[in-house]
Amino acid sequence: MNGENEQTEVPLGPDGKPLSKKAQKKQQRDAEKAAKKAERAAKTAAEAEVQEADDHAQDRYGMSKMIQSQEKLDRQMCRVKDLDLSKAKQTVWIRARVHTSRSKGKQCFLVLRQQHYNVQGLVAVGDIASKAMVKFAANISKESIVDVEGVVMEAKVESCTQKDVELHVHRIYVISSSEPQLPLQLDDAVRPITEEDEEAGPTVKQDTRLDHRIIDLRTTTSQAIFRLEAQVCQLFRETLNAKGFVEIHTPKMIGAASEGGANVFEMGYFKSKAYLAQSPQLYKQMAIASDFDRVWTIGSVFRAEDSNTHRHLTEFIGLDVEMAFNYHYHEVIDVIGDMFVQIFKGLQKRCVEEIAVVGKQYPCEPFKFLDPALRLEYHEGIRMLQEAGFEIGFDDDLSTPAEKLLGKLVKAKYDTDFFVLDKYPLEVRPFYTMPDPHNSKLSNSYDMFMRGEEILSGAQRIHDPELLIERAKVHGVGLESIKPYIDSFRYGAPPHGGGGIGLERVTMLFLGLDNIRKTSLFPRDPKRLTP
Amino acid sequence: MNGENEQTEVPLGPDGKPLSKKAQKKQQRDAEKAAKKAERAAKTAAEAEVQEADDHAQDRYGMSKMIQSQEKLDRQMCRVKDLDLSKAKQTVWIRARVHTSRSKGKQCFLVLRQQHYNVQGLVAVGDIASKAMVKFAANISKESIVDVEGVVMEAKVESCTQKDVELHVHRIYVISSSEPQLPLQLDDAVRPITEEDEEAGPTVKQDTRLDHRIIDLRTTTSQAIFRLEAQVCQLFRETLNAKGFVEIHTPKMIGAASEGGANVFEMGYFKSKAYLAQSPQLYKQMAIASDFDRVWTIGSVFRAEDSNTHRHLTEFIGLDVEMAFNYHYHEVIDVIGDMFVQIFKGLQKRCVEEIAVVGKQYPCEPFKFLDPALRLEYHEGIRMLQEAGFEIGFDDDLSTPAEKLLGKLVKAKYDTDFFVLDKYPLEVRPFYTMPDPHNSKLSNSYDMFMRGEEILSGAQRIHDPELLIERAKVHGVGLESIKPYIDSFRYGAPPHGGGGIGLERVTMLFLGLDNIRKTSLFPRDPKRLTP
Repeated sequence: MNGENEQTEVPLGPDGKPLSKKAQKKQQRDAEKAAKKAERAAKTAAEAEVQEADDHAQDRYGMSKMIQSQEKLDRQMCRVKDLDLSKAKQTVWIRARVHTSRSKGKQCFLVLRQQHYNVQGLVAVGDIASKAMVKFAANISKESIVDVEGVVMEAKVESCTQKDVELHVHRIYVISSSEPQLPLQLDDAVRPITEEDEEAGPTVKQDTRLDHRIIDLRTTTSQAIFRLEAQVCQLFRETLNAKGFVEIHTPKMIGAASEGGANVFEMGYFKSKAYLAQSPQLYKQMAIASDFDRVWTIGSVFRAEDSNTHRHLTEFIGLDVEMAFNYHYHEVIDVIGDMFVQIFKGLQKRCVEEIAVVGKQYPCEPFKFLDPALRLEYHEGIRMLQEAGFEIGFDDDLSTPAEKLLGKLVKAKYDTDFFVLDKYPLEVRPFYTMPDPHNSKLSNSYDMFMRGEEILSGAQRIHDPELLIERAKVHGVGLESIKPYIDSFRYGAPPHGGGGIGLERVTMLFLGLDNIRKTSLFPRDPKRLTP
Repeated sequence: MNGENEQTEVPLGPDGKPLSKKAQKKQQRDAEKAAKKAERAAKTAAEAEVQEADDHAQDRYGMSKMIQSQEKLDRQMCRVKDLDLSKAKQTVWIRARVHTSRSKGKQCFLVLRQQHYNVQGLVAVGDIASKAMVKFAANISKESIVDVEGVVMEAKVESCTQKDVELHVHRIYVISSSEPQLPLQLDDAVRPITEEDEEAGPTVKQDTRLDHRIIDLRTTTSQAIFRLEAQVCQLFRETLNAKGFVEIHTPKMIGAASEGGANVFEMGYFKSKAYLAQSPQLYKQMAIASDFDRVWTIGSVFRAEDSNTHRHLTEFIGLDVEMAFNYHYHEVIDVIGDMFVQIFKGLQKRCVEEIAVVGKQYPCEPFKFLDPALRLEYHEGIRMLQEAGFEIGFDDDLSTPAEKLLGKLVKAKYDTDFFVLDKYPLEVRPFYTMPDPHNSKLSNSYDMFMRGEEILSGAQRIHDPELLIERAKVHGVGLESIKPYIDSFRYGAPPHGGGGIGLERVTMLFLGLDNIRKTSLFPRDPKRLTP
């Protein structure tokens, strides 16, 4: 999966569509340019040595020794995002990547990047910079990391995030140089896919991105996605902690395939076997039986499911919630529903910039939700589908197309991208789901949806060991493998419920992205275990 | 490992020491009492039916139907910890466990528990309660969950956490009843081990606790331990987020045993193989190469190490930190050192109650630290050991006894339980450790210690691909297996460093506990995969 030549091998655009002639040509031109640039860089280095003797700027640029903590420098580094008119005429140091460099006569323009911020740098032949220094700057390979000393000057630079200033470079040293030929171009990687306009330029297909994930993650879009994803977790924690929840950690290696044998990864465990937990389900319930009252956990979840879709991963991050309640599991739905409302509100407040950055490449309607969250019953959902001409019965499980359509119908009727679907048929839910007290075909269970895709599955759980045994038998679950779990309800257990959320799905659907691989840092699917 | 009879089988105290005669007798008496109580409960239930006809309180007590969300009750439940004089004479509802029940003439005294809080309940024959109701209350098995309506009355109850009030019970219903015979007694499980005083009563040995973990977790000590552990994570996050770090999630299933083949769990991955990550090391570094600048991650870490000690687990929670720095890796030590100081300060401020509760069972000196944290160089540590008569050379790795002794020497000299040991010999560190620039035998690496045990290992990492390859070869690490990792430094990478912390060790050592199994919710070791 590390085909570094993949991009040049077959001239395909994203999603495997062949590139237009023009785009192909541009791609080729880019590659040629990069090669020439590398050649020039080598030549320049050689020339520089010759010229050194009569170079008045010779101490002002060069390749730095590898930083091995040789010395402690008392140098204040400035952040690129802080470069604005308030710093005009000040001399500052920054460490940044060379996003692009372009020479023009006796000048060299650099775009210096720090995460999703960038500023223009200017090296111009004169009292400070020499011709050799300009040449040196022009030949620094893209993505190299440089230390730059410069004076902040007023300027109008529309193409950078720091629009009001540029940096007049007085010193520039390469701290870590990039190989001249990149496996993918950052500018290509953030280009929106516009089917109408093939002139726009090449884009990068998903597998190339993932093979060279560390470059793809540097784009403004990726930086924004993962900073927003971190906020999803942060808001999840803040909201639940404020509601009296406690963080716990549950084991991933378990002695028995306790949630059913299918889709579970098996591993060696010293002289015996173990399995990777498909969820923290049983353990978070045991924490409730252990008097933790309300718990949450964030951790890896493993599914040995051979599903190669836009929304399945073999390893993802589960945000799990479980709580004791008093009399009715809607107490749980209320807590989780409000938690989602707080997450959505928080994201729209804290991540304005991130949402805008991602929207530039992947345009999408802003995420809509109601407060309090909308709760529909399963049979209402089925009826909406039937009325829309979709063939489905009241006891059937929802297929992916049914979920998608229901999401659209609910959006049209209630103007919300988020809703709770309550009271699923008992038959389609796991053995530990509490049956409905009034209708033996139904259960006290629910899913939650964002833009028509399931992001949480939850229920009231059975807290009575005898009923649990009865239901496990109906589902054909081996009692021996779940003995410690069942036993944990023998010494008094409060009624309780909860749910499990897929983090990457929440991020994907909040931002309206098309593939879960975009929201997993190093995604795992049946065909991908690297990088 | 689910031997419910284990405790009665061999009369051993904790750590396998045989119980004294007196303690043995007490244990036997307890078991007999419980059995008799169960018998009585069954008898009473039968009697109750007979008596029902002339029972004026017959609606005021009984077994509740299993709560299946039959109805939504608009009943305000009070928390036990909120029961004090401010509520005197008020009628309240609580849901709690019956910690103990004891009848005395026409009265029954209950201790009603909610996590680590408890209050006394009183059922007395009179206008409200009947003789049958008192009998019913007296026979509720320990650990059952009850709903109680009662009037808060002024009282002096030294043995409960709510000392100023008791609850005069008007109604009592069993919500979830416990089996009458518990696999371990909560009072035994919180009893301090006092070698001098065998009269104190039986304690519970570790394996019995772990086999019946959900009971053991209900003790005041366990509740306090895990609430404090949650605060360790919370303070870790707060401190790092305030310093500009971003949360990331790294894959646990990896394609190659990239940190060395020993001690790694192997698993099936569809038609191929995978390994469980021994740390997020390589991935957090790749996040730095991807411009995330400063990252942290909390997640499960797996070690297939056949170590059966007080401080090794096969699965634990890693708190990992990685950051780019400017010129010297001491920038990293300063950040991590200060982070620990903030964690210690935060725990001592927020967890006063938890520390006190744990200290009752496991007495221990309060944790001491300096601000800023003490940093010693490795050779200074070796010299202190040598001066104390310990045989060790400057190039030797520290053994566990050496670490323990050094901890004591440092405590005696500097009065701190926490310190950083810097500049380890290169030879004893992993291949990706940056060599010292001035002394080829040393490295830019450090460990951090709490009470003489290592809780963090960290270093400046090599960010130059050529040096990385050279060092991997020296260590005999297969280059093919780490190609994606090495390649991630080819396109510009900032100097960076970090460290990995074992959560359970931090909790254990902060509280001065003797075994890491006490600070892991459901611990995993070479011999234990359940519950």
